[in-house]
Amino acid sequence: MPTPPIAQFRPALAFPLGVVLCLLLAAGGAVAQPAILPAPVEAAFSAGSFVVTTETPIVVPPGDAEAARVGQLLDELIGPAVDGAPAVDAGGAVGAIVLDRRPDRTDLGAEGYELEVTDRGVTITAPEAAGLFYGAQTLRHLMPPHVEFTAALPRPLPVPLGRVVDRPRFAWRGAMLDVARHFFSVDDVKRFVDLMALYKLNRLHLHLSDDQGWRVEIPGRPALTDVGGRTEVGDGQGGYYTVADYAEIVRYAAERFVVVVPEIDVPGHTNAALASLPELTCDGVAPAPYTGIRVGFSAVCVEKEETYAFLDDVVGALARATPGPYLHLGGDEVKTLSAEQYAAFMARAQQIVAAHGKRFVGWDEVAEVPLQPGAVVQVWRPQAPAVAASVAEAVAGGAAVVLSPSDRIYLDMKPDSAAVLGLTWAGLNGVRDSYDWDPAALLPGVPEASVLGIEAPLWSETLGTLSDVTLMAFPRLAAVAELAWSPQAVRSWPGVRRRLAAQAPRWTALGVTFDRSAEVPWER
Amino acid sequence: MPTPPIAQFRPALAFPLGVVLCLLLAAGGAVAQPAILPAPVEAAFSAGSFVVTTETPIVVPPGDAEAARVGQLLDELIGPAVDGAPAVDAGGAVGAIVLDRRPDRTDLGAEGYELEVTDRGVTITAPEAAGLFYGAQTLRHLMPPHVEFTAALPRPLPVPLGRVVDRPRFAWRGAMLDVARHFFSVDDVKRFVDLMALYKLNRLHLHLSDDQGWRVEIPGRPALTDVGGRTEVGDGQGGYYTVADYAEIVRYAAERFVVVVPEIDVPGHTNAALASLPELTCDGVAPAPYTGIRVGFSAVCVEKEETYAFLDDVVGALARATPGPYLHLGGDEVKTLSAEQYAAFMARAQQIVAAHGKRFVGWDEVAEVPLQPGAVVQVWRPQAPAVAASVAEAVAGGAAVVLSPSDRIYLDMKPDSAAVLGLTWAGLNGVRDSYDWDPAALLPGVPEASVLGIEAPLWSETLGTLSDVTLMAFPRLAAVAELAWSPQAVRSWPGVRRRLAAQAPRWTALGVTFDRSAEVPWER
Repeated sequence: MPTPPIAQFRPALAFPLGVVLCLLLAAGGAVAQPAILPAPVEAAFSAGSFVVTTETPIVVPPGDAEAARVGQLLDELIGPAVDGAPAVDAGGAVGAIVLDRRPDRTDLGAEGYELEVTDRGVTITAPEAAGLFYGAQTLRHLMPPHVEFTAALPRPLPVPLGRVVDRPRFAWRGAMLDVARHFFSVDDVKRFVDLMALYKLNRLHLHLSDDQGWRVEIPGRPALTDVGGRTEVGDGQGGYYTVADYAEIVRYAAERFVVVVPEIDVPGHTNAALASLPELTCDGVAPAPYTGIRVGFSAVCVEKEETYAFLDDVVGALARATPGPYLHLGGDEVKTLSAEQYAAFMARAQQIVAAHGKRFVGWDEVAEVPLQPGAVVQVWRPQAPAVAASVAEAVAGGAAVVLSPSDRIYLDMKPDSAAVLGLTWAGLNGVRDSYDWDPAALLPGVPEASVLGIEAPLWSETLGTLSDVTLMAFPRLAAVAELAWSPQAVRSWPGVRRRLAAQAPRWTALGVTFDRSAEVPWER
Repeated sequence: MPTPPIAQFRPALAFPLGVVLCLLLAAGGAVAQPAILPAPVEAAFSAGSFVVTTETPIVVPPGDAEAARVGQLLDELIGPAVDGAPAVDAGGAVGAIVLDRRPDRTDLGAEGYELEVTDRGVTITAPEAAGLFYGAQTLRHLMPPHVEFTAALPRPLPVPLGRVVDRPRFAWRGAMLDVARHFFSVDDVKRFVDLMALYKLNRLHLHLSDDQGWRVEIPGRPALTDVGGRTEVGDGQGGYYTVADYAEIVRYAAERFVVVVPEIDVPGHTNAALASLPELTCDGVAPAPYTGIRVGFSAVCVEKEETYAFLDDVVGALARATPGPYLHLGGDEVKTLSAEQYAAFMARAQQIVAAHGKRFVGWDEVAEVPLQPGAVVQVWRPQAPAVAASVAEAVAGGAAVVLSPSDRIYLDMKPDSAAVLGLTWAGLNGVRDSYDWDPAALLPGVPEASVLGIEAPLWSETLGTLSDVTLMAFPRLAAVAELAWSPQAVRSWPGVRRRLAAQAPRWTALGVTFDRSAEVPWER
């Protein structure tokens, strides 16, 4: 219980930085080869480090609230690690971490950045705040993993000298969390967003309704959550997000440059809605709540006007609550309607989404019906020739696609046969399976220009806790993040294997369970 | 998203158990060699298994509320794993898990049990409910680790055929959690109790006050928590347990046969109290709150009657709120009082504890002053000859000891030099260091009969989250649990290494971070 020598890590303000640097380098030993995940477009490092200490200010442009918030998040990360929050200010730049917003750097794109580390400090340059944020995430990967502990004894944080120029390959870099089969709390979702942001993912698709539960409050429709919000797979109590909860998720995600894509699955996967609102069934009789894991048995009554009034209420409420441009209406696995009924329903559903000012997203079943301009098709069955053909046709007609091949990146598929959690109906999705494919070559009729991006769905039939979620998500979601961010030319299986291996101590520091897959040579 | 074949795991009620057994064994493959931790006194296993399914009832003696609660906890564990809560009832015993309370089995002691697994079912026999609970924990260790997942697809749980007869070596098998340096929520403490119970630990020592914080509401003394409850090491907000929170911790722990031992540290380690109640200082001036990690600088004013009125209020409130017999008053590291002042204070402190009907516990500094009959000395510095001598003298005078050697089982000491969390002032405490010593041989003048037990303290200067806590606690706390439970003759380093290795998938299923120490050949 005696005093550790914290003082030695606290150079006096007037101490010359170079001397501090030398002292700390001598104490800190060699800098590890940086393992930035996802791999950046361009990166070069040289010997030596700049050492971040409690005296290192984070400098943001005056009057730039967005950049200041990025600085604040960086400060919250670094502060505890070096004992004391580095001041976020607009002061001198020597020995500082400078967030430099340059609207004229259009060469970097809306999300790109340049990161430079010299012996005089760190500079992150970007035209938009998103780029500053991604540069800060890269800086985080350049720091030792112990930066992620909140209460470890303060110590200096060496950052290797070098330069990174980086921008994403795809605009949509997503993960889907199924909060319907099992409910996850607002705090759980926030922790998941934190982990997405660490890997520069920017779309959180929330699967908010299914046969087993309805997870979001819709003003004027309390039965949906009073009834449908109280069940989940198995014997659990379910749960739902109030309007305020949902707003908090959206706000928290936006602060980390993650756009929430809400999904209400219709016309199938609707037993929880039908159990809540019997007027949505053709015979007006509410079915019993369902807590198993079968699919395809439920559908709203597409002949009744009540169904469209319901859909208008739901879409309207979500559109108002969601700043992002997308609204996902599912459309998958409808086994109790005719093709004509399905097409007629989807036509009206698309009109409702458009009327509320949002861009329609649906699973690849929707490629079989006429799509409005700007529609997004989420492809989960590219291996089926009929699906590939209908998706190619939709793309020819102007639709964009998000790639979620179930036999590659459905993260609820077991990674190997020894896994306990997860399902196997699309096969085993190992780490390499998830990573080692080219999105531009997945579907013959779908060129890269039509690929909006990549999204890894995580269905939760077998996942009851956030720890279960992260055990299935990692390492694969980090590999998928590289697939979505990094150009094909800088990606490689040996490279990502090394970068994934380096995440182990970071995940441990973050308290994140992950699968110690035999495919990755884990660091301890 | 299609349906998995759950049905095959649900034999019809009328199906003969033997046939079910054969089918399930054929499906389940070989049974792993059991790794019961702590190692039982006596155990023998043979080929074959009894398979627990959703149809396996848990049978408890009629009218025995304590046994029923043990059955309920077992049911909560097994139910999700086999899809459906096995009924807790008093019905037929064939093919069942029977909790058989036998007051006449005094040979097993207050905490012992006998566990028998045959092809006709599982029987746990014990004279007391605690023994039934520990037998249930052993049954848990005999089941595959996937039993710990709450939402994995249901599957049978094979239990190897055999017999265990078991009882603990020591009555006090403890862990101390320092909630003062960093505060941990009620939920965090409950999760820690869950993990203690899994390894048959039965004393949770809560270090409730220190220089950096005061963590428990004392009726009539709101300043203690209004001021002292709002700081912790570093920049955190601290926190405290309300009277209701503390009661919930005590209740939850008791249900798992864990006795809470509350500690208020006096006369030193009191800056948070002094900052809250200036009348406790000699000059009546409140010191500033302290959030560093030095020790030894604070003390209540031992000359003022206000100090004893304060102590009486605090001890009275905790005595009323704590069903367990112990009250810990610290007494350690007092560097600002004379030996006479310290002795006089401790004499009155012991009287106050006795007046409120509790048994006094103190750190080994208290062995230097006259102790009341029944006092318990918690030995943290056995390596110091002067301490060893004063403890031996106290023992000769009738005191009991709890062994917490800082150079062995202080779990806040780093396990190796690569560890980020933790301190090193008592050295590096590796897994083997923690385990490989004999409590009966630690102190020459302290025979086994005077050793009440073993306790591993976990100070939280560098621990900010429950994940940090478990990363430092495991695997070492599980090794210490064996040290405290198992007879010296059945313990061995190679044996416990294998048993620890087998905990990895269980901890992963529980979402518990742990140190993948190079000393243990971890299972994945």
